[in-house]
Amino acid sequence: MTKFNELFEQSIQNYLNKFPDSSLKKAIAYALSGTGKRLRPQLMLSLIASRGLSPESFYSLALALECVHTYSLVHDDLPAMDDDSMRRGKPTVHIAFDEATAILVGDALLTDAFSLISEHTSLSPDQKVQLITTLSNAIGSRGMVLGQVLDIASEGKNVSLNELEEMNQLKTGKLLEASILFGAIVANESSFEDYKMLAHHLGLLYQLQDDLLETLEEATVLGKSKSDTVRNKPTTVTYLGLEKAQELEKDYHQKIRQSLFKLDLEHTLFSTLIETIIQRSY
Amino acid sequence: MTKFNELFEQSIQNYLNKFPDSSLKKAIAYALSGTGKRLRPQLMLSLIASRGLSPESFYSLALALECVHTYSLVHDDLPAMDDDSMRRGKPTVHIAFDEATAILVGDALLTDAFSLISEHTSLSPDQKVQLITTLSNAIGSRGMVLGQVLDIASEGKNVSLNELEEMNQLKTGKLLEASILFGAIVANESSFEDYKMLAHHLGLLYQLQDDLLETLEEATVLGKSKSDTVRNKPTTVTYLGLEKAQELEKDYHQKIRQSLFKLDLEHTLFSTLIETIIQRSY
Repeated sequence: MTKFNELFEQSIQNYLNKFPDSSLKKAIAYALSGTGKRLRPQLMLSLIASRGLSPESFYSLALALECVHTYSLVHDDLPAMDDDSMRRGKPTVHIAFDEATAILVGDALLTDAFSLISEHTSLSPDQKVQLITTLSNAIGSRGMVLGQVLDIASEGKNVSLNELEEMNQLKTGKLLEASILFGAIVANESSFEDYKMLAHHLGLLYQLQDDLLETLEEATVLGKSKSDTVRNKPTTVTYLGLEKAQELEKDYHQKIRQSLFKLDLEHTLFSTLIETIIQRSY
Repeated sequence: MTKFNELFEQSIQNYLNKFPDSSLKKAIAYALSGTGKRLRPQLMLSLIASRGLSPESFYSLALALECVHTYSLVHDDLPAMDDDSMRRGKPTVHIAFDEATAILVGDALLTDAFSLISEHTSLSPDQKVQLITTLSNAIGSRGMVLGQVLDIASEGKNVSLNELEEMNQLKTGKLLEASILFGAIVANESSFEDYKMLAHHLGLLYQLQDDLLETLEEATVLGKSKSDTVRNKPTTVTYLGLEKAQELEKDYHQKIRQSLFKLDLEHTLFSTLIETIIQRSY
């Protein structure tokens, strides 16, 4: 087990240890476990390390990001939403437990993310407020939740490529952006524009890679059901065709590398992580 | 329309005005409207006023409390949870819209509550962090959500009166307590113990009154379906019998009035509000 995995698992345990024993604790532990890539925590922690700070004090913040990501998956998988039965290589929470538990697990994870931030012991109140503003705007009614609403509304409708990209940025890109901004806020950066630009293209790339994988690979390899294809949702790949989509992917690679250069983040732990995302060998 | 109602409606409009037009905006507006008593906002704002501050700057904080309360109702009403079809005198969100929308409306309201706090323009970062810690602990996996989990788990089981009270305190009392603590934090109080004691008994009273009303009145008068009785959930009244429950109610009245005296809050706007709750003429 890598040091990251060990410390991250420890932060999950620290979080769960505060719970009284209940079915909620069991279900939250289940939701947080599994084969998740922990991408959002890694983005934040590697950026902190690349700016010369020790990431070890910030695992509970990284967990806050993973709690939010997990909440969004648990709610998206519900029968009334995407109705997925497999996630992270195992049955979804509403299958392993029940629907009521899945709704409440999501509600608890979302709420607890804000506890984890506000109760952090070494950040200033001002940094905490910055983090909470960043996160809540990224995932609320002008962010991730709006993206999910637009996604559901788009089923069976003609949406333009622009609308599709905006929707994907809200659904997926905003939380990735928040993860990078978390690192920048902890590192006491004063300007966030270049980070946002990097995050913008990373979000677009990440979704495009998903769509390309969805087209090219079997559902079983991905470890989740192929619900988008089954529902015939439009993707950037179905709009552009495979070849143009792959060209666009390379364009994003270039823009992301330009941002890394501009931020003086080349040859750091953070840029190594970004390169593994670019290569999708993550 | 009273000044409170006018300013509170205005704070809802200010909040909704930030949304792009979407079905989400419409559904959130629907969820927040209706015959709600706005008890939690009033608790906070009347306490602020009673401590000599102008409440007008704090309506967006009061809205944060109402957003959280509304989210909890929208999710609790879902078919997988209490399966209620009427709320605040009109069809529940999943009936008026659909289940997916109801899940997402709840998620958005919960998240946006934290935006409303963190983006407040006149509080200090330290106060905001105190508010967010208070709220997230009150409603997360050690608070309101845990109460809901225990409530569902209690169906058809023998729970003791103590367990029942603890469950009710988590489900209902914690957010009422947070509403009072919000007022105390804004008023820059340094000790919260007496406020917590007052809130504790107010929470117990409020739930007991609900149970008594549920026993004595018809569902139609309450404007919501009589789901607890239909599901045969135990209540304090079924445990103690009507007479002893009414004695307990009076005991709570006394304890609450003692706290008001201790906090030097007699003959204020806040104590007037508390008295209307005690008289249930609220």
